[in-house]
This record gives sequence, C-alpha cells and structure tokens, in this order.
Amino acid sequence: MKSIRPALPALSPGLANAVASTAHAAPQPDAVGLGLMQGFPPPADKRVLRSNFMEPPLNRWAFQHIRELQPTREVWRGDGPVSELPVEPMDLGKVTGTVRDGRVISLDQLLDESHTDAFIVLHRGKLVFERYMNGMAPHVQHQVFSATKSFVGTLMLMLIEEGVVDPAKPVAADVPELQDSAFGDATVQQVLDMTTGVAFDEVYDDPDSEIWRYGRVFGLWGAPPPGYDGPMTIYDYLPTLKKQGDHGKAFHYVTPNTDVLGWIIRRVSGKSVDANIAERFWQPMGAERDGYIWLDGEGGEMAGGGLNITARDAARFGWIILNGGRFNGRQIVPESVAKRILTPGDPEIFTALYGQFPGTDWYGKVTHSYHDQWWSFANAHGAVGAIGVHGQYIYLDPKAEMVVVKLSSSPTAEGGPNESNDTDGPLLYQALGEYLLGR
Amino acid sequence: MKSIRPALPALSPGLANAVASTAHAAPQPDAVGLGLMQGFPPPADKRVLRSNFMEPPLNRWAFQHIRELQPTREVWRGDGPVSELPVEPMDLGKVTGTVRDGRVISLDQLLDESHTDAFIVLHRGKLVFERYMNGMAPHVQHQVFSATKSFVGTLMLMLIEEGVVDPAKPVAADVPELQDSAFGDATVQQVLDMTTGVAFDEVYDDPDSEIWRYGRVFGLWGAPPPGYDGPMTIYDYLPTLKKQGDHGKAFHYVTPNTDVLGWIIRRVSGKSVDANIAERFWQPMGAERDGYIWLDGEGGEMAGGGLNITARDAARFGWIILNGGRFNGRQIVPESVAKRILTPGDPEIFTALYGQFPGTDWYGKVTHSYHDQWWSFANAHGAVGAIGVHGQYIYLDPKAEMVVVKLSSSPTAEGGPNESNDTDGPLLYQALGEYLLGR
Repeated sequence: MKSIRPALPALSPGLANAVASTAHAAPQPDAVGLGLMQGFPPPADKRVLRSNFMEPPLNRWAFQHIRELQPTREVWRGDGPVSELPVEPMDLGKVTGTVRDGRVISLDQLLDESHTDAFIVLHRGKLVFERYMNGMAPHVQHQVFSATKSFVGTLMLMLIEEGVVDPAKPVAADVPELQDSAFGDATVQQVLDMTTGVAFDEVYDDPDSEIWRYGRVFGLWGAPPPGYDGPMTIYDYLPTLKKQGDHGKAFHYVTPNTDVLGWIIRRVSGKSVDANIAERFWQPMGAERDGYIWLDGEGGEMAGGGLNITARDAARFGWIILNGGRFNGRQIVPESVAKRILTPGDPEIFTALYGQFPGTDWYGKVTHSYHDQWWSFANAHGAVGAIGVHGQYIYLDPKAEMVVVKLSSSPTAEGGPNESNDTDGPLLYQALGEYLLGR
Repeated sequence: MKSIRPALPALSPGLANAVASTAHAAPQPDAVGLGLMQGFPPPADKRVLRSNFMEPPLNRWAFQHIRELQPTREVWRGDGPVSELPVEPMDLGKVTGTVRDGRVISLDQLLDESHTDAFIVLHRGKLVFERYMNGMAPHVQHQVFSATKSFVGTLMLMLIEEGVVDPAKPVAADVPELQDSAFGDATVQQVLDMTTGVAFDEVYDDPDSEIWRYGRVFGLWGAPPPGYDGPMTIYDYLPTLKKQGDHGKAFHYVTPNTDVLGWIIRRVSGKSVDANIAERFWQPMGAERDGYIWLDGEGGEMAGGGLNITARDAARFGWIILNGGRFNGRQIVPESVAKRILTPGDPEIFTALYGQFPGTDWYGKVTHSYHDQWWSFANAHGAVGAIGVHGQYIYLDPKAEMVVVKLSSSPTAEGGPNESNDTDGPLLYQALGEYLLGR
C-alpha cells in the first residue's frame, strides 16, 4: 500500500481547521528547566537515551547532542580562517506578520511559541538578528534533519554541472546494487526531484512499516527487538525498497531518495557525503565550526537527514546560494546551480499526489513545488528553502536578499495545531523579508 | 581472585626473554593498504565495527575513528586563536639508542617497527620532529587510551590545590554512591595513586571477568549477549567493585580508579571531565583542534581511557607540565602541580605487588613508580609519562626539556615480543633526550 503521507522526516498535512491562540504564549521549558541530563548521573526519568531521544520533551536536549547518542563523522572545516560575518544588529523581534487564521504575531512571539533553539537573519550577508534559546550557543552543532537533503541535492547538481553524473541516466548505471530496487530504473533527476514511484509507507505505530526500517538503520529506536533480521545499514536497506507506480509522475516525499543520491555521490567521487560537504562547502566558505553527520553502525552516513551544524554555518551556506554561488571571495557553487535552486519547480507534479493539500493545510498554503532537494515557497519573493522535521529551516528570500535560519526542537515531527513552527514560520519569514525590503 | 596482572588498558609483563631482531623491519601495512573501510560499502571482511574494532589489524583503522563507532562528546577548544608551535625541524630519524638485548636501533627503525600513527618531538616548546603514518594527519584525533588518566589526574591535583577536594578524605565523602564499593573507604590520594585494594581480575577470554564488564559499559564488545543483565553505565558499574586487601599498601593498576576520580570531578565541579579538560587545558592552551571523549550509552565519559586528541595538542599539554605549568602566555596548571607530577613516586609501593617484574621485563627496566595517574621512568633524566595501551605515549624529559608524543595502533594491548613499542620506545626516547642535551 502506498501512503499519501510523506515519510519521516517529512512535512505533513493535518493542520486544517487548526485554532490558534492570539495570546503570546510563554517560552516552552528548556532542557535545563526540564532537568534533562542534569547531574552525575541524571535521575533515571531524566535520561535521554538512544532508545528515547526522539520523544518530546527529551528531544529538546537531544537535537544539540546527537553525537553523544549516535556514531558520527566530522565535517572538517579545514585549517583556514573563519569567514567574517559582519554584524549589524537590527531589532527585528517586533516585526509582525499575518499567519494562520488571520492571526498577527511578532517574531518574538513566533520564537517563544515554536520551541526555538537558534534563530538567525542574514541580510545582504550581514548578521542582523541572532538569538539562542534552550541552551543553544553559536558553537553548538544542531541536528537539521531533512535540511540535510538540500546540501546533498546541491552536491549532486554540482556533479551534474561538472559532467560527472548524467541526470538522465538510471540510478543503476552508477549503483548496480540498486538495479532490482525501486530506484534501479529511475533517473538521477527523478530521484533528485522525489518523483520516483516507491512503495513507502509511514505508520509510526507499526514497527514493520518502511519508516521504522529506515530509522532502525540509524539507531532511531534503540536496539532492535530480539529476532529482528531486517537491514541494519543503509547499503542493505536501500535495495529492499520496491517500485510502485511510475517514476516522474508525482512528487512523493520519500527520504531514502536522498540516501540514493548519497550512494551515487560516494560512488562517483570516491568520498563520503560528509567529506564532499567539507571540501566543497565547509572549507571554501570558511565555516566557523566543524559539522558532523550521523552514521549507521557500519559507517554509512544518513544523507537523508543526518547533518549537525551551527546556525551561523547554515546561514553561510544559504548565503552562498542567494549570492550567485559566491562567498568568502570564492565561487563555491557554480552560478548556474545557484540560479537553478532559486527557480521554482513544477506545481502540477508537486500536487499530483498531494492534491488535497492546497487550501487546507500549510503545504498548500506556503509551498509551491520541490525540485533538486529544495522546496519552493508560493510567495511574492520567490523564496526557497531547506526544511527539516521538528522545525528546521534554512529559508532563502532572493528579493530581500535574506537568509533565515531556524533550528528548533518541536515536540512533533510534522507540526501540530498549536505549534507555530512549520505553519506560521514561513509566513512570518516572508513578513521579515517585506520589512527588510521596505526599510 | 585478585589477579596480579594489571587491568586493561594496562601495561603488562610477559616480555622476559624476548628475542629481538636487529634487522630493520618494513613498515607495517597501513589501514588503506589493508583495505579497511575502503569502498561504499566496504567489503564485508574489511568492515570495522563496534563489535570487532579492537581486534588487530582492524584497530589500525579504528584508533583514528572512534567517534564513528561510539557515542562521544566534544572537548571544545573554544573560539580563541591557536597557540603557535614554532617549527625548527631536526633530522632525528637517524638518532640511535640501545634497547632490549643490547640491540641498537634508530628512531626511523622504531617508528617503522611499532605501528606508529603519529610521532612528535617538542624541544623547548619547538616542534623539531613530526611524522604521520597510517593515514594519520595533524588534524586527526587519535584514541589515547590510558594516557587519558594523566589528564584526569592533573585535573584532580588542581582541584586539590584549590581546596575543592581533600585528598585524605574517603571517596564516599564526595560520592556516597560508592560507600559500599571497594572505593568507599579509600582516600582520594589512594585512588590517584592506584593503591586501592580492589578485587579486579582480567581474563580476556572470560566474559565474566571484571575487564569484560568494564568494557561492556563502553560498547567494547558490541551488543551484550542475550540475557546479559550486568551494568551498562559507568555509574552502575563502579559501585559493583568489591574491596580486597588493604588500601595504600601496593600499586595495583586498575583502570576504574580513574573513573572514580572522574565521578568525583563531576560531582564537585558540576561539569563533565571533558568539559573540565576543555576549560582548564584546551581553551587556555590554544589547542589546535577540539578533542573528544568516548561515552557509555547514557552520557558517562570513559575517564579511564576515552580521550581522543591530536598529536600536537598532546604535545602542548605535555609542555605545560614540563614548563612549570605555563604555556601560551598563561599559568594553566599551578607550578606546584607541575612539579609534583615530575617528582618520582615510591618505588617500594610500586613493586609491592609487581615485585617479580624488575630485571625481568620492561616494567622493571624502564619504569620506577606511579603516582597521581602519571608514570615515572627509572632513567637518568627523571622522565615521566602518560601511557596508553597499543602504544600511546606522552613522554616528558625534564632534563632535555623534551616532550615525545607517540600515537600507535599496535596489535596487542600490552606489547609482544616482536613489538618495539612499549619495550623499546622509552629507551629510545631517553636516547633522543641525550642527543638533544649533547648538541
């Protein structure tokens, strides 16, 4: 059975008829306030473990501490100097925007209501607003979940631009191990755009569902149950996915597509995805800090959602794309790739499967299309973004020349009726862009 | 039964009558030459896993990649500038020394014969010799095993100097959880000096032995066998150790002593051992790179042997101790603490349990005493050192004002008859010191 629900880490429907309060809620309790992992040892009921760290509120601590729970590999920033981010503080906290149900809220209000860990606004390359909450700090690497996909997509576009990968070729041309899987006869471009026909369902309370099998590979549910004989590495897992339907017909958000891209990248470059991110982005851009990526038990990285980076380095990466691929005095990403990322995709493909969404949930309200592992927003500034579950955003507004980074630890993956994150966030970011443009 | 064999990670006897070749052996195959973890995925028989990484030759890869196998926490170097290590290259490779059985070997020969990953000589604070092998590089953090203990011991000496810890008080005064364990009535000083009376035996092929239970806590043997109900965290493990014999009578090398120190340090400082290392050493000394520490499954660090650092930062730390506690323009360690570390301990206590060693194995040949988590060598320069299994050394020669750092991936923990590491290394380091003094 093919679910119409997107896969973890996905963005999902379910927000129709949400009733939002106009009251300014108090900030949510932070990890220290909750007593998580405090003391030596922490009390038994306050321990964040490999088996429970995705559960709220434990995730408030976990998303800044993934390496303490999982095997990880460094994204090395190199030995070069840190690129300067000129600071020009602006009091953006009082900027308001109209969000769901006509509610008008301020940025301060959004940040308080949406389990914010870090929030940055970069305007024309200058750091104009920066806030840390919940124990987060500028040097701390935060799990960005599916925002990882946009880094991987950008790498693949660069390899295509360089002629190393042919986007029209089937996946099996580079990775014969996937010949008999759902992906074998899909083109690289279809995988990039997530229009592959894959039998992939997502039922959180069914440990036999695909999403559980994917998470299992990366230790998401703790030790496997006795007798579990499913795949335990990404290399064993991907070939098990079966084709369903035709490729190229409809956008279907399936995280393992990105892991397929990761496999191709490794195979053609001879280097891991994280080494590619290090050499192609982190080192030339003068990242402030090493990043790291979450691994399976045999060294395979979670290309679909395992990157952990600082808010400032996420902002630097966003600015590269907005700035024609240039940053830190270098052409880091080809201009053609940066332009392509900023170009909207095909809205018909985007809604073919999720057609019921527009007008009834935030998907339809704020996003327009998806291609090359980037989201396009249906707004007046032509914004695009990298998005991850539990409230991760790298939002690029080309018209306002603004990058917004939001790193969060929302209780649900996909947002709930009382969560401002996924629903109200992009609407308020658009208001921020309008404010900056109108100054 | 109390074993006379020291615990993992320990240095051990067994080298009497070793026959050394005088031929210059070829360098050992490196991790890439062995094909370890090469390819996407690597071939099944070349995968280094949590369940096998301590086995030779897989450890040739593993000791530079612990974070890819285990949960870890960063030792943050901070935002400050890297302290300069002036480079003044000297061709020390041809320096020779007399080692076991009268054999004369060169430094080049030692490095080739002893599974070297990194080797540094710092002379009067200048980097005079630096070599990397087996894929190691200046920026790579290497597992240092029990050399970690000397960092922990130095932290404890600083807390004692500051009046925060009373070395004469029993451990249970600060950690009541250890009241009924072997350590409850031991003084902090006895724990520092490893003269506690602890029932601790080490039988590598007996999964019920203490050393297996310790390793289990840190994932050393992969997933526990079905039905295993032993401790899985350092906090659960330490209270299970039982007293045997009197405290203070004999040096008995038992790694969990250092984990007891770690617990006290956390309790009195309110911070993890790694945070203490970061704030007290890495940040003030201007470390080149973040380090990291290996964790149990619930965030408890392996104080007894889990530090991963670069060779250069190990050398910086060594130079602090040799340099009266000063480095990078700061008094980082109190001068009294640095002096104490350089003062030999009590050789009678040292040999009380291991009395059969002198004259028959390298312990007796090259080491003189142990106190405060540091080894003293019985040589003319009054050298002291931090030592870890599989060939890890931070060797301090006060007379020659020389720090030697050797990071290795030897096949056996404790050295074998054909391994130059533990046996010949300190003898050749003494020759290096004599060479530098005589120039």
